[in-house]
Amino acid sequence: MHQTFDAALEMNLLHANQHGAQANRDRFNRWGITCLNLMSSPGSGKTQLLEKTLHAIQNDFRIAVIEGDMTTQLDAERLRQHGVPVIAINTGRSCHLDSKMVAGGLHQFENEQQPEDFDLVFVENVGNLVCPAEFEVGEHAKVALLSITEGEDKPLKYPIMFREADCLLITKTDLAPYLDVDIEAIVRNVRQLNSKTTIIPVSAKSGEGLGEWFEWVRQVVAARGGGTMADSSQGTLAASAG
Amino acid sequence: MHQTFDAALEMNLLHANQHGAQANRDRFNRWGITCLNLMSSPGSGKTQLLEKTLHAIQNDFRIAVIEGDMTTQLDAERLRQHGVPVIAINTGRSCHLDSKMVAGGLHQFENEQQPEDFDLVFVENVGNLVCPAEFEVGEHAKVALLSITEGEDKPLKYPIMFREADCLLITKTDLAPYLDVDIEAIVRNVRQLNSKTTIIPVSAKSGEGLGEWFEWVRQVVAARGGGTMADSSQGTLAASAG
Repeated sequence: MHQTFDAALEMNLLHANQHGAQANRDRFNRWGITCLNLMSSPGSGKTQLLEKTLHAIQNDFRIAVIEGDMTTQLDAERLRQHGVPVIAINTGRSCHLDSKMVAGGLHQFENEQQPEDFDLVFVENVGNLVCPAEFEVGEHAKVALLSITEGEDKPLKYPIMFREADCLLITKTDLAPYLDVDIEAIVRNVRQLNSKTTIIPVSAKSGEGLGEWFEWVRQVVAARGGGTMADSSQGTLAASAG
Repeated sequence: MHQTFDAALEMNLLHANQHGAQANRDRFNRWGITCLNLMSSPGSGKTQLLEKTLHAIQNDFRIAVIEGDMTTQLDAERLRQHGVPVIAINTGRSCHLDSKMVAGGLHQFENEQQPEDFDLVFVENVGNLVCPAEFEVGEHAKVALLSITEGEDKPLKYPIMFREADCLLITKTDLAPYLDVDIEAIVRNVRQLNSKTTIIPVSAKSGEGLGEWFEWVRQVVAARGGGTMADSSQGTLAASAG
């Protein structure tokens, strides 16, 4: 969040954003879609994680992606290779997605697809460990990624993200032998801020932890009443009621 | 930068910040101090680079650090071990230092030290590859760090930082054997945005490139008329005139 020299203005901004986020969430609910918001520093591995995830679970769920980047469609193009619809949002100078931008993305989604046919939308946020945590976009759960290359102290130094996360993926664990990093210390630092978040160390390269992550996603969708593709009409009904 | 739903307000914010940055720069100039603003994603190695730099050049220059963090004094405490004054600024929810915060830090610096005795102030900004690039704090040069673990595409995806940088340090090169990363591609991507910036691949662990970085710092200080500690009065006078 930027200081705007005006606390009331900041509260108005956040309040307007929350209002828009709830409107987006209402749309997801009507469509029977679960929305997960992926957030992290640049280069923590969000896109690669999404690639592995799409590959693993797109037989279970009908998936779309909302891809936030300041500029370029590089990540959107990578993800389109996996055969899912990707709505690319370029934020320009903005350091995070906000609910208004995502509302525009949902409008496009509605024009191009049948949203009721989908179970799951991943939002890949702009790479930033600070601001995305404060700007909800209508997600049902927040997923934060922290690469072990970033160091043990980051949860304490950037606490908002780690307080807000429903799931924390500690990524790039395959690099542990080459770093002076203590993964247990990362976990302890996160636990000082958030006793409830699910913490999963993962490596997209070695595959460590990915099964546990896929299972977490499945459970979140199931808990909201979302079904497998074979059972999507029932899932959609149940989710609409939620 | 956050979208505030009001372009005029955004311009006013940036304009007010520029005005404050120039006032800070004027103070640095009066004191004969060169100020370098270090910016990067979280965990790219700013603090470790500063530790190595203080160790290597504090016989040549009288140095102080302005340390920006959302919360904690973890980095400030690390740097104080090296025997230099460190002014810690906690930005709270703000994702970057701005010129007003740094003005407060300079006020504290002036109360606690004799600024005219110093040659060089490093500002370590909040870890964020987006917003710090737009908020000058009064620096004479901008130094960006990009860890090779973040991937080749980051200059294209976060262009503002790479356009603004006077020097780019590509960090953690010791990890290259364990990553699928092409350092030459990083350089090419930066060159699309910025033909003039000095690019130095470095590793704080192996020492690669550090000598070239120290030399870059020495030359920037010398170009502004700053001298060695043995010659500080002359350096101060020359810099004041600059």
